Amino acid sequence: MSRITQKLESLGIVLPEAPKPVASYIPAKLVGNLLFISGQIPFQGGELICMGSVPGDCSPEKATDAARICAINALAAAHQALDGDLDRIQEVVRLGVFVASEADFTGQPGIANGASELMTELFGAAGQHVRAAVGSIALPLGASVEVEMILQVRG
Amino acid sequence: MSRITQKLESLGIVLPEAPKPVASYIPAKLVGNLLFISGQIPFQGGELICMGSVPGDCSPEKATDAARICAINALAAAHQALDGDLDRIQEVVRLGVFVASEADFTGQPGIANGASELMTELFGAAGQHVRAAVGSIALPLGASVEVEMILQVRG
Amino acid sequence: MSRITQKLESLGIVLPEAPKPVASYIPAKLVGNLLFISGQIPFQGGELICMGSVPGDCSPEKATDAARICAINALAAAHQALDGDLDRIQEVVRLGVFVASEADFTGQPGIANGASELMTELFGAAGQHVRAAVGSIALPLGASVEVEMILQVRG
Repeated sequence: MSRITQKLESLGIVLPEAPKPVASYIPAKLVGNLLFISGQIPFQGGELICMGSVPGDCSPEKATDAARICAINALAAAHQALDGDLDRIQEVVRLGVFVASEADFTGQPGIANGASELMTELFGAAGQHVRAAVGSIALPLGASVEVEMILQVRG
Repeated sequence: MSRITQKLESLGIVLPEAPKPVASYIPAKLVGNLLFISGQIPFQGGELICMGSVPGDCSPEKATDAARICAINALAAAHQALDGDLDRIQEVVRLGVFVASEADFTGQPGIANGASELMTELFGAAGQHVRAAVGSIALPLGASVEVEMILQVRG
Repeated sequence: MSRITQKLESLGIVLPEAPKPVASYIPAKLVGNLLFISGQIPFQGGELICMGSVPGDCSPEKATDAARICAINALAAAHQALDGDLDRIQEVVRLGVFVASEADFTGQPGIANGASELMTELFGAAGQHVRAAVGSIALPLGASVEVEMILQVRG
């Protein structure tokens, strides 16, 4: 079992099937040694765990959990693109995090940490990444959070 | 005539002049084999075909058409950057799609398909890409859609 | 003193300490010859110079200044990542600019020029870049502007 798969297990995380795109695109694309991952929403067991704007419709705590679920779904996409070998991930490069927000909610960084911290839990220093976290008026299917990623992978 | 130019023609698409940036930036920039394209808005014949938020000011159908126009403008930018040879495009890597949205509009993926589907019509499997589609409270000049791209090109 | 450091000085710009991330991420990450910079907000002397939505809470003029401050903070992050040698920056590739906007504000390109123009003042033709500028309902800590960057650097 791969090192990262073991870590996921030790965190009690079961990687789902790679997310089905909700439209005309693919979950991941490898270009040279960069693996681009499509924006993921917090599907868990086929349902969005958190919908609507933060904090009115979805609490910051729940949205932070949702960001972590988005990151797990991104890893599921990477898992499929890398033929099941997550140890090929060399560095986590960038996370783009969109948080469905009410106009006066400014805690997007805290929400995004739900995704960011999973990356460093799993990959250590290699998991440290740059990030843009911003508020969005509305996200696909009513999701509260969307997370996209760029990873660097080994040949 | 290049293969992609022929396909554009068979789809009845006339590539416009490369879009003039509306501010201090350039339409496309090549770094190694990655061609980055600036965010495009749905200018057609010098006018935005769709303005304001979806669905109140601009219907989803119209916004989907607008996303396709944005993608055509992105190809016009690529055409100029690649000295007129769109066959140098090897892979479509990523589309970033921003949809001016009312707070309860969650159909951004459908709108973004207007751009995504043109890519696969033109480039086949090589046109399949990752994507982030999100809602935006307001876009430049009042556009309903903005699309940016990363393409992989041949040396 | 490096060429770019001299130009900064001639513009009266004192590069601050690299911005402290406001959450679980790092200011910059180098992958091959691409340097990714995290989304920066307009901190100056430890305070945000502009908060809330444009134009109600923050005027377009002030927000344009804020975009320039964001770009300076991005350069501070690059300065740290490149061991103090900004002359290693070969090309400015892409700016992502998010402007906290009221629903009817569509002047994001003008605001983003505050960041873009600094890049061309400093780097000339190499500073010309692609850009996506969009409106956002709310940004981290209440900032009016957030700017992220991709730079190409010399080995």
